[in-house]
Amino acid sequence: MRALVAAAMERIGAHIEALPAMPVCDVAGGAALARTLREGLPAEGCPFEHVLGVLFDRAVPCTFNTASPGYLAYVPGGGLFLAAVADLIADATNRYVGVWQAAPGLVQLETNAVRWLAEIVGLPAGSGGFLTTGGSLATFSAVVTARSEKLGERFDDGVIYTSDQAHHSVQRAARLAGFRRDQVREIGVDERFRVDVAAMAAAIAADRARGRRPCLVVGHAGTTNTGAVDDLAALADLAAREGLWLHVDAAYGGFFCLTARGRAALAGIECADSVTLDPHKGMFLPYGTGCLLARDPAALRRAHGSPADYLPPMQDDPDFVDYCELSPELSRDFRGLRVWLPLKLLGARVFARALDEKLDLAEVCAAALRELPGVELVAPPQLSLLAFRHVPAGATEGPELDAHNRRWLAAINRRGRVFLTGTMVRGGFVLRICVVSFRTHRSRIDAALADIRAGLAEVGG
Amino acid sequence: MRALVAAAMERIGAHIEALPAMPVCDVAGGAALARTLREGLPAEGCPFEHVLGVLFDRAVPCTFNTASPGYLAYVPGGGLFLAAVADLIADATNRYVGVWQAAPGLVQLETNAVRWLAEIVGLPAGSGGFLTTGGSLATFSAVVTARSEKLGERFDDGVIYTSDQAHHSVQRAARLAGFRRDQVREIGVDERFRVDVAAMAAAIAADRARGRRPCLVVGHAGTTNTGAVDDLAALADLAAREGLWLHVDAAYGGFFCLTARGRAALAGIECADSVTLDPHKGMFLPYGTGCLLARDPAALRRAHGSPADYLPPMQDDPDFVDYCELSPELSRDFRGLRVWLPLKLLGARVFARALDEKLDLAEVCAAALRELPGVELVAPPQLSLLAFRHVPAGATEGPELDAHNRRWLAAINRRGRVFLTGTMVRGGFVLRICVVSFRTHRSRIDAALADIRAGLAEVGG
Repeated sequence: MRALVAAAMERIGAHIEALPAMPVCDVAGGAALARTLREGLPAEGCPFEHVLGVLFDRAVPCTFNTASPGYLAYVPGGGLFLAAVADLIADATNRYVGVWQAAPGLVQLETNAVRWLAEIVGLPAGSGGFLTTGGSLATFSAVVTARSEKLGERFDDGVIYTSDQAHHSVQRAARLAGFRRDQVREIGVDERFRVDVAAMAAAIAADRARGRRPCLVVGHAGTTNTGAVDDLAALADLAAREGLWLHVDAAYGGFFCLTARGRAALAGIECADSVTLDPHKGMFLPYGTGCLLARDPAALRRAHGSPADYLPPMQDDPDFVDYCELSPELSRDFRGLRVWLPLKLLGARVFARALDEKLDLAEVCAAALRELPGVELVAPPQLSLLAFRHVPAGATEGPELDAHNRRWLAAINRRGRVFLTGTMVRGGFVLRICVVSFRTHRSRIDAALADIRAGLAEVGG
Repeated sequence: MRALVAAAMERIGAHIEALPAMPVCDVAGGAALARTLREGLPAEGCPFEHVLGVLFDRAVPCTFNTASPGYLAYVPGGGLFLAAVADLIADATNRYVGVWQAAPGLVQLETNAVRWLAEIVGLPAGSGGFLTTGGSLATFSAVVTARSEKLGERFDDGVIYTSDQAHHSVQRAARLAGFRRDQVREIGVDERFRVDVAAMAAAIAADRARGRRPCLVVGHAGTTNTGAVDDLAALADLAAREGLWLHVDAAYGGFFCLTARGRAALAGIECADSVTLDPHKGMFLPYGTGCLLARDPAALRRAHGSPADYLPPMQDDPDFVDYCELSPELSRDFRGLRVWLPLKLLGARVFARALDEKLDLAEVCAAALRELPGVELVAPPQLSLLAFRHVPAGATEGPELDAHNRRWLAAINRRGRVFLTGTMVRGGFVLRICVVSFRTHRSRIDAALADIRAGLAEVGG
């Protein structure tokens, strides 16, 4: 057992030390690699060294290097090593935390972690929630809870409201929960990509007039496209006035509430009925840790709870949480340890400082991009994400302009020090920078800006 | 980093060595412990030794000892240490496997693992699926897929059929997916607790006559109550005849297909449209690894897929799987490594032998219980789970008989060497033994039988 861990740690240590110098994206030959790795169920085993070789020499290098300090694509994961230690302990001890009675102390540590997250976004005492594997399942449970609270078992006439910049997990959550496509309204946005609250109010009124039942507003605290933060206070007012459930998808943005700038940008989030957070984004944890917070955990229980003769008795004391009653899972990992251990060991201030640094770095990027002739800051950072493109003199909207910007993106990424991705905004292709990795510091941002300038020169900017 | 792991491994090693002698269930003082562990968000950190102390000296000991060889309760988890090593590597390298393009080699390893599981239950080439955190979410996605394939966006008139011994996750999955309670029929069972297929056929006919749309049959390969395996071949015939989706919940039983006896008991599972498996049961992994297999992975994609501008392009080659398209998750952990690594390193035969041993041990229990006067084997093992009770001479059904058996259960568990649980069967309380832990061998089963006899003597059997 110890020998296995020692051998794995040799490889892990070397890998993490090499990260800064490794290419940020290297998937050339991926299809061929995948084909050579294919094999049937092995009857007999093989040595651990062989397994480590497959992983560290072949499969891990051929990836988007999501763990690199230069990974500024999508919304970066992190990979705080403390979480790996937490999982090592959780897996090896393998206790069951879905039912309070089975592990009262461990469940309390998970509950501490959930309450800390609620405290971070400013939800009141008495709020709760549960940890998921990521934002998508958190948002799914929010939709199910809103459906259960506002519509009941028949919801053919229910309507959900969000922005046309919504993460696709909102549409998907609605579909999984049994809503039809035409029961989700994607409302337009303002020039900063924030949902048009007046238009949403009008849509709600129009639906009511047609006999529909509006049930849920989904706001965003940091969209994936451009990092836009909706006017959450206005959405909270609207939802309260209309008696709707307010869910805020703060998967990317929520942890910035640890900073003064973030709290200002996300003002109103504390009025939400439920909030999606991704500790694997703003808390720098490895992929696989999301969270759904709820002002009234009893609503989660009404939507998800399910009795069974073969289970131990559930708790009525609200301090003692049976997570299998609040969430769609029964057996599952002790993922609370992954959240609790880093916060307990490092303290919240360390995270606040790191997130403040990310906000600063995004501002550095924005300031530098504003200096570049012809570069349009399509979405200045509201948090740590920004979108931009180059518009050569005389260029007009269309496929040629998009192709030009795609070439620019490729020229930047080809240099191997940073990895950016693009998206479509108002019908045009834009480049994005998202600074969230705990490994990204000023020196790498300077490298990014140098490569952005060099790439632009290369494509004739 | 290495120091953290070394310190954690000290504790883990000592814990695992002590497991056989530790009490199998010790949650006395759990409420008090939980209250003392409660605390607000810490601004500053604390030493790692303190964290290890909280975990190993306080929280972990006060639990149902799910990792103990004497844990024969519910359906035991396992906690194969290799999976902990896999998670350590997956967390530390933190690559993203939700999209094929982001990690072609790692995704292939996960796909190998999924295909191995499909091979184990006998699904044909071309079948696929995805890993979940457990059986509940796997079954949920099966229900959503059946709904999408058989009913479409409007499913008010759809009906689901399962047995009255169904795991509660079936009802819950239907509810989450938007079905009303009255859209799920729980059909009665035969004397071996297997669903009455003729009664199910009659219910389907009756529903069709009333204009309802039958869509899904959920069979069980090892119920949680008594370990019953439905006649899966008959269910497959029925589903094929009626054009319904057949899902088999083999969360507990599926891995026994690695053994000759298991394959015989589960004959017909290879005809299912989808199958729930829990590698954290029959593959002895730590809690948190389930699987949904599907004969036609394209159906999973039709039900779950969701495009987005900000994502990389998805694959059309069926060999290259984008897991975010088949499943409800987007960002999530690389849980494939937890399944792939132990199978690759140990080979399937090791698991087959271990599962054969569990079948033998359940037979040993059954034979010994048959010898005890007044003991009724309510459910002889169809796999490795059995249910029984003591009926004193002249006793009749009712609360007194139940109380007598509850006292017997308590007298067994009080001895601390094994932990059994009970359930309600045909209105009466029964004791259960479920042998699934890789740590449970003959010596512990002999101890269990000794404690069962001693407990019975104590309560006057």
